[in-house]
Amino acid sequence: TISLVETEEGRILQEELGREVEDDKEAKPIYMVSDGTGWTAEHSVNAALGQFDHCLVDRGCPVNTHLFSGIDDVEKLVVIIKQAAREGAMLFYTLADPSMAASAKQACKLWGVPSTDILGPIIESISHHIGVSPSGIPRGAQGRKLHLTEEYFRRIEAIEFTIRQDDGALPRNLHKADLVLVGVSRTGKTPLSIYLAQMGYNVANIPIVLGVEMPRPLFEIASDKVFALTINPVILQAIRKARAKSLGFNDNTSSNYAEMAHVREELEFAGKLFAQNPVWPVIEVTGKAIEETAAIILRLYHDRKQQCSMPRISKRY
Amino acid sequence: TISLVETEEGRILQEELGREVEDDKEAKPIYMVSDGTGWTAEHSVNAALGQFDHCLVDRGCPVNTHLFSGIDDVEKLVVIIKQAAREGAMLFYTLADPSMAASAKQACKLWGVPSTDILGPIIESISHHIGVSPSGIPRGAQGRKLHLTEEYFRRIEAIEFTIRQDDGALPRNLHKADLVLVGVSRTGKTPLSIYLAQMGYNVANIPIVLGVEMPRPLFEIASDKVFALTINPVILQAIRKARAKSLGFNDNTSSNYAEMAHVREELEFAGKLFAQNPVWPVIEVTGKAIEETAAIILRLYHDRKQQCSMPRISKRY
Ligand SMILES: Nc1ncnc2c1ncn2[C@@H]1O[C@H](COP(=O)(O)O)[C@@H](O)[C@H]1O
Ligand SMILES: Nc1ncnc2c1ncn2[C@@H]1O[C@H](COP(=O)(O)O)[C@@H](O)[C@H]1O
Ligand SMILES: [Mg+2]
Ligand SMILES: [Mg+2]
Repeated sequence: TISLVETEEGRILQEELGREVEDDKEAKPIYMVSDGTGWTAEHSVNAALGQFDHCLVDRGCPVNTHLFSGIDDVEKLVVIIKQAAREGAMLFYTLADPSMAASAKQACKLWGVPSTDILGPIIESISHHIGVSPSGIPRGAQGRKLHLTEEYFRRIEAIEFTIRQDDGALPRNLHKADLVLVGVSRTGKTPLSIYLAQMGYNVANIPIVLGVEMPRPLFEIASDKVFALTINPVILQAIRKARAKSLGFNDNTSSNYAEMAHVREELEFAGKLFAQNPVWPVIEVTGKAIEETAAIILRLYHDRKQQCSMPRISKRY
Repeated sequence: TISLVETEEGRILQEELGREVEDDKEAKPIYMVSDGTGWTAEHSVNAALGQFDHCLVDRGCPVNTHLFSGIDDVEKLVVIIKQAAREGAMLFYTLADPSMAASAKQACKLWGVPSTDILGPIIESISHHIGVSPSGIPRGAQGRKLHLTEEYFRRIEAIEFTIRQDDGALPRNLHKADLVLVGVSRTGKTPLSIYLAQMGYNVANIPIVLGVEMPRPLFEIASDKVFALTINPVILQAIRKARAKSLGFNDNTSSNYAEMAHVREELEFAGKLFAQNPVWPVIEVTGKAIEETAAIILRLYHDRKQQCSMPRISKRY
């Protein structure tokens, strides 16, 4: 392995700095390095960037992120950090091996790259809390043992179940679902179902269509697992228009799917159904990302099961 | 809003402390609080806990996590922190509003709850890097504008496409896929496809079955988007046995699906197909979580597109 404080390295870098031409003059580069998948860094940086939406949406402060995953040796790390220095990037890292994390910090300091350890402080405080030292072994390390846990199989089965139950399919299986979502077309039932399935829930979704009766089993299963989705009619119409266009519907075949009068009538039809089933929570999805609606549904779902003073989702490790 | 330093609050807490009985004597509680969905805290803490696998798997250091999402006022925050104090929990938080974050820190200090701000340091270093102040507005805040971006619709369409193309369905659409996964049954094609779809990729997966010809379109599309999955035969047999059992197959109906000779023969059949198509990267999924295989595939995919010196996934904000 090469030494990070070698002055020769520093000089080479200095020489290269002048020659490098930036691809994108405006956008500020953010580098993310992980010895694993990089999804933790990606997720955290993405959430943090939400705090700069006010200048990101109008491209007042454009940002480019660059994710480097599976970085498991110092050589690769150094190549990336030198590149970050050339591009004027900052660097976030998640590196389980303490010597790798120390190298990242040291190299960034040496080459003037602002850097932040994303996971180190979290691991450290858990270690202190539970009184156990972290392994320091990256997730992808050789010889790591495979844990084919029940949880793992359960999640895979949940995904397969949820695919089979999409869009009102196989209503006779509704009793096997943990969660049943109902709502008119384009309220996000499918992506929401899939999102929840990835977390291990068996989800079924059933479309509400104007004038069409809902399948009988919906009213025979436990009503506390049914969640109703609703949406602002103006937004819904906009979404449906976009969809009709992307599906290549012409005005004849799309019939009245995206017509305002029809949209309103269908939402009223749904509203009546919801009123007849007051146990179903009605969740407003307008302006919410899929993961936000998922959070609301799971909060209600777990709250009903646990009856804690403050809704929470608990997990055992 | 109530004051966090009110001594009365402190006294009430003191009184309650003695009465509280722990549900679970052994497991160390970890609290997570967010003004949003809580998924960032959940994801980060989950990754960090991977560093304690050596004592989590044998339940040598059991941990219970408790996620509180949508915490948007100080009152709720204080209730949770007092509860954390009673349970001897530590607390992680992601709170966009600086005054909420300050309250969390202060209240934790007051009641002796070890606490760590997960997102604050990341937001701060981005702010410094791009020279813009964070908005301080939580994602769920009232009046936040809906951004129905192209990216948003693209992700939803990717999920719907991927569901339609599961398990070899509609081979005539293969040319529309960004990624095509091939592998024998139980190599994780479906969950992997869905994971990638959520990231915005149109994915199709096609099962390899002993003696069955692959659909013709597979050989007519751009071969650089096809990825082959392979797995250790012993592990595969174990997975198939578990699956046959969970599906309620008896020995007759399951035929030789999980028999070792059959498993080996089928993997050899797949291996020959891979050898005939050397452009397809062959990815070993044994012992890998879905998100790890996804990271490998996307690294290769983006590397081929970008031809950078070091494989990276770049994104523009
Ligand atoms: N299951 C796990 N076991 C050990 N370390 C993990 C695990 N999951 C994530 N990590 C570590 O957490 C950091 C973030 O992981 P990733 O999100 O895959 O980039 C990396 O340093 C990983 O090595
Ligand atoms: N799109 C966004 N806009 C503003 N803030 C966000 C966004 N996404 C996440 N955040 C903030 O990041 C933190 C973590 O979010 P969450 O993962 O939803 O708990 C919270 O403080 C959120 O308010
Ligand atoms: Mg749907
Ligand atoms: Mg499958």
